[in-house]
Amino acid sequence: MSGKAFARERLIRFSDCDPAGIVFYPQYFVMFNGLVEDWVDEGLGIGFRTLVIERRIGLPTVRLEADFRAVSQMGDRVELSLQVERLGSRSLTLDSRCTSADNGQLRMQMRQVLVTTSLESHQAVEIPHDVREAIERLHGRT
Amino acid sequence: MSGKAFARERLIRFSDCDPAGIVFYPQYFVMFNGLVEDWVDEGLGIGFRTLVIERRIGLPTVRLEADFRAVSQMGDRVELSLQVERLGSRSLTLDSRCTSADNGQLRMQMRQVLVTTSLESHQAVEIPHDVREAIERLHGRT
Amino acid sequence: MSGKAFARERLIRFSDCDPAGIVFYPQYFVMFNGLVEDWVDEGLGIGFRTLVIERRIGLPTVRLEADFRAVSQMGDRVELSLQVERLGSRSLTLDSRCTSADNGQLRMQMRQVLVTTSLESHQAVEIPHDVREAIERLHGRT
Amino acid sequence: MSGKAFARERLIRFSDCDPAGIVFYPQYFVMFNGLVEDWVDEGLGIGFRTLVIERRIGLPTVRLEADFRAVSQMGDRVELSLQVERLGSRSLTLDSRCTSADNGQLRMQMRQVLVTTSLESHQAVEIPHDVREAIERLHGRT
Repeated sequence: MSGKAFARERLIRFSDCDPAGIVFYPQYFVMFNGLVEDWVDEGLGIGFRTLVIERRIGLPTVRLEADFRAVSQMGDRVELSLQVERLGSRSLTLDSRCTSADNGQLRMQMRQVLVTTSLESHQAVEIPHDVREAIERLHGRT
Repeated sequence: MSGKAFARERLIRFSDCDPAGIVFYPQYFVMFNGLVEDWVDEGLGIGFRTLVIERRIGLPTVRLEADFRAVSQMGDRVELSLQVERLGSRSLTLDSRCTSADNGQLRMQMRQVLVTTSLESHQAVEIPHDVREAIERLHGRT
Repeated sequence: MSGKAFARERLIRFSDCDPAGIVFYPQYFVMFNGLVEDWVDEGLGIGFRTLVIERRIGLPTVRLEADFRAVSQMGDRVELSLQVERLGSRSLTLDSRCTSADNGQLRMQMRQVLVTTSLESHQAVEIPHDVREAIERLHGRT
Repeated sequence: MSGKAFARERLIRFSDCDPAGIVFYPQYFVMFNGLVEDWVDEGLGIGFRTLVIERRIGLPTVRLEADFRAVSQMGDRVELSLQVERLGSRSLTLDSRCTSADNGQLRMQMRQVLVTTSLESHQAVEIPHDVREAIERLHGRT
């Protein structure tokens, strides 16, 4: 898809960092999980809480590839962004990046496949119609 | 001290919550740790990163008392606030609260004693002069 | 109560520590949460998973007081222990300690009030009979 | 390399799980980070703490690919295992798996490239000789 990315700035906090003074790498995935929440809330206008709690739709990750290019340190301001690379019938592929908000340096990059599932059965379900439309509206049609 | 509290809003995220669907209680302390960072950065204007990394001053907690009054759920907007209750020579006592940003309901309340330490020796040191002055400016003199 | 404490050893891991190279204090509460699980599983013989998932009983913390006496560093072996200080009708008070497994040095100490709740209503319920009996068997009657 | 894998069992804890009641996926990376510590300590006999704190050698991840095949739930016992797939001059590739300790079901699988770095300069350095020898002894020569 060719539309614009969804992005948010974030401060690297003390609690994100390890004894080497840099972001503990699993914490990047926690940060991107928060970005997906903001994207569903503010980018797509769907409401993450409504999706998960009322509609009982989950978005588990089934595959990811990540490259860690440069370290992020406590106090850094970073930009987290995501773009929809592929929109399938029951899954979507996100291309996410963490860059320095100061100089644009790429810190970490990830390709992630999410599946829409029923939180009752943990089985994959069709991407809901309103979610699909909102994605196409925001990021453009494939 | 009688001055105003320092406060920030925050969204309760999926990653803050446990299998009961509510904030996992240790996560409140992670949130308040972030509030202390913001307070040092934005409230006191000292720069948390500078304080910790360049000046090698730490702010470990030596004592806390916390009461959990009501649960917070994913998607809730909460207000985290802190007030300086006591400013000693090498320690300070914070009175922190988490309330619902929607209706003001008290969720959690904490009294926390922090000590200024040297990150080289892990020993207590005097609260730096500029930090003390900034606290008195923001929160009022005892 | 006067019976013996329930204790487990644990290694302080890289992921428990902060940029100062010592345990990030909220992580102590995560460790003690794990100790409570082991206590319910192995000390009381009740089965934590059964209690929470099948019987839908939660054990939220409503109050805690903690003192941090000495730092724990990556690679330290610590002993986590808990003793039941008070067994009420819907709540229990635990006295927990983290000490060095090498020399017994007290690192952190906590008094914590837990309430048995229904995970459906989030309301307090009576401590189940089998849980009460198992506590009295392990730790002695008040 | 063709030698045996290094493996450890672990209980899936309440604190590993998300509001859907299953392991929050970044937590798998925290668990595998712990496995690498145990491998360096007990498998290689090098001492993770000595390596990181005294010798100032870090093992940051520069690339990973992960597939999440089935969910793990609170109370599950899992086996975490790692095998060295490739041993380079400054990097090594680990093939890690999380399987059910009850029935062997594959839960999650990861290929991860780690680089040995100086914690002073954050630059890559040669894999220390004793580490290389210990790896070849445990896992076999390529």
